[in-house]
Amino acid sequence: MNVREESLRLHREKRGKLEIIGTMPITNGEDLALAYTPGVAEPCLEIAKNKDNAYQYTIKGKTVAVITNGTAVLGLGNIGPEAGLPVVEGKALLLKRFGNVDAIPISLDSIDPDDIVNTIKNISPGFGGIHLEDIKAPECFYIEDKLKELLDIPVYHDDQHGTAIAVLAGLYNALKLVKKDIKDIKVVINGAGASGIAVAKLLMSAGVQNIVLCDLNGAVVEGDDTLNEAQAKIAKVTNRGFEKGSLSDVIKDKDVFVGVSDGNVLTKEMVETMNKDSIVFALANPVPEIMPAEAKAGGAKVVATGRSDFPNQINNVLVFPGIFNGVLKVRAKEICDDMKIAAAKGIANLVSKDELKEDYIIPSVFNKEVCEAVSKAVVDIANEQGFTREYLMVR
Amino acid sequence: MNVREESLRLHREKRGKLEIIGTMPITNGEDLALAYTPGVAEPCLEIAKNKDNAYQYTIKGKTVAVITNGTAVLGLGNIGPEAGLPVVEGKALLLKRFGNVDAIPISLDSIDPDDIVNTIKNISPGFGGIHLEDIKAPECFYIEDKLKELLDIPVYHDDQHGTAIAVLAGLYNALKLVKKDIKDIKVVINGAGASGIAVAKLLMSAGVQNIVLCDLNGAVVEGDDTLNEAQAKIAKVTNRGFEKGSLSDVIKDKDVFVGVSDGNVLTKEMVETMNKDSIVFALANPVPEIMPAEAKAGGAKVVATGRSDFPNQINNVLVFPGIFNGVLKVRAKEICDDMKIAAAKGIANLVSKDELKEDYIIPSVFNKEVCEAVSKAVVDIANEQGFTREYLMVR
Repeated sequence: MNVREESLRLHREKRGKLEIIGTMPITNGEDLALAYTPGVAEPCLEIAKNKDNAYQYTIKGKTVAVITNGTAVLGLGNIGPEAGLPVVEGKALLLKRFGNVDAIPISLDSIDPDDIVNTIKNISPGFGGIHLEDIKAPECFYIEDKLKELLDIPVYHDDQHGTAIAVLAGLYNALKLVKKDIKDIKVVINGAGASGIAVAKLLMSAGVQNIVLCDLNGAVVEGDDTLNEAQAKIAKVTNRGFEKGSLSDVIKDKDVFVGVSDGNVLTKEMVETMNKDSIVFALANPVPEIMPAEAKAGGAKVVATGRSDFPNQINNVLVFPGIFNGVLKVRAKEICDDMKIAAAKGIANLVSKDELKEDYIIPSVFNKEVCEAVSKAVVDIANEQGFTREYLMVR
Repeated sequence: MNVREESLRLHREKRGKLEIIGTMPITNGEDLALAYTPGVAEPCLEIAKNKDNAYQYTIKGKTVAVITNGTAVLGLGNIGPEAGLPVVEGKALLLKRFGNVDAIPISLDSIDPDDIVNTIKNISPGFGGIHLEDIKAPECFYIEDKLKELLDIPVYHDDQHGTAIAVLAGLYNALKLVKKDIKDIKVVINGAGASGIAVAKLLMSAGVQNIVLCDLNGAVVEGDDTLNEAQAKIAKVTNRGFEKGSLSDVIKDKDVFVGVSDGNVLTKEMVETMNKDSIVFALANPVPEIMPAEAKAGGAKVVATGRSDFPNQINNVLVFPGIFNGVLKVRAKEICDDMKIAAAKGIANLVSKDELKEDYIIPSVFNKEVCEAVSKAVVDIANEQGFTREYLMVR
């Protein structure tokens, strides 16, 4: 298959990846009287009494907006809002296919963080959640934080949290294989943008104590005044040994490498300097930081990539459909770290003790239990911690 | 049927009126590679080269946004963005059912015109057209005008233009029955908000020379400093006889009454003061300005309402599906008055000379030819006047 030609042909033929269809038949005047005038006034009036009734009478309770501004699309960079559309349509397609969540793609013609926040706030009444996608760092942090303050629906930046949860899921199982405790491992994360910082934060919440972030400028270390605000903040709680230098310097004696940036940056020789039974998650797409065979040759015990054509595909599609399925089910107001950790454990636990091996640390994205496990993790934590709105029975 | 109970039950059971489904199957890794990573990069790159390619590779070319802020919902007034959702979902449902147009409902949490304009501009990259709905006057005029300046996709306020086109369609056929020339008739329009002003403008474009608008404060007349900006503007070109007083004063000796405001404001006695063979379009919903039997008793020759349970239903659903079907087909940049007039003629001409009678001046909303006729009218004018973007063959 020529992916390029076939993808373009398919996108043209299908006119994009989504279709909006009606759930009510309109075959006669009576149907029209219920869905349109005069019947449509009734749900309007019920919602006017209490705006939460929108969850009952409209698509709000089952629908999220997948929003980009096209500033950090895949590995392609800032290609603009129109060019970002295929990705948000794709995420919407996957939310439906894997999470049974209706999703509407929105691409924003704006690069100003406050303007983006205001626009998303303005369009939020019709949605049960906000899925941010491919918005560049550091703006994405500000945008997400502000929206969480302003909105009473969950806000989730997939490039951050989807990646972090998927990495943590894979790490839980990889650590079982190499018999290391999460509290003892030393981790290097290559990429100090949205994904890398989010991975660092979630790993810390999950108990990792020794993390060094690294990017093209080398190790992220407290006091470096070239760091952006988000990097400066994470530098205060990571790299407590104040390690400096490039990736080849700081990877020495680490147990885990997580790559969420550029391809082809890790060599067999660098892997050789890691601790025994090292774990290499080379997640750059489409070209990983190192090819799995090379990493193995360098001594890595467990290797994962983001690609479907190698074993151990660590991919966000394992995560976001179940997250939104769960938050919509209980109408959770936010997606907290406990939910993320529970979701990661839920995914990891789908690989049984007997099945677990170096080449099988993470379930397939086509495993139906993945969405159920993630959704259940979110629902359980929401109920436990009360992160839900009063839940009205829908039927 | 108890419309209230049945409507609420149906909206609850269906969880709103729309569903978003995928157009591409995702059953294996190959499907994922085309719709998601790495294949999704290909349409992104094509669109990055030329943003017009979004019409080919995404849903943009077949999708419009139906946008309200809930400030003028049906006859219910300013009930807020959440309560406006059932109406925009309903319009989206009808766009699909009657126009084969995919439509996404958006309800805005904003009442500031510039903020609304900016928000719609920001979300516009993913849409092939903007359908404004239930936004109160006079803000709706400013919002539509500004968006037309800013965007290169068509912008259409249904409360204005849908109503105006439907009225003109009905009027064309009613005038055939009473054998009056459009240039000679005297028209009174009750309601000087968005719909009334738009009806006045389109009737003038179609050749009507004598129009008086009227609202609760009486006739709209030039120089009255209580008028809002839009009313003051229309007052300069209507009511050239400077008629003053209430509806009962100005309706005297008129040929046509068009009601687009409140129910129960027109009496048999007022109709009796109109010219012979008068035409009464009592379009307020759900309660018309006058019941058809009363209007007939007062001497009206042709009576129409907005309701499906009386003959001659003049309803926007005759118009907007075909308008967007047409503009999307040719990628028209705007919806000009010539298109609106051609659309009205297209609808009117579906009632043949033999079929035309007092109780049948307008085709049924379920007549499939209506959308085709409106769409063809739009396409023909667009091609004639060059109001299109370069049209790329989709297949």
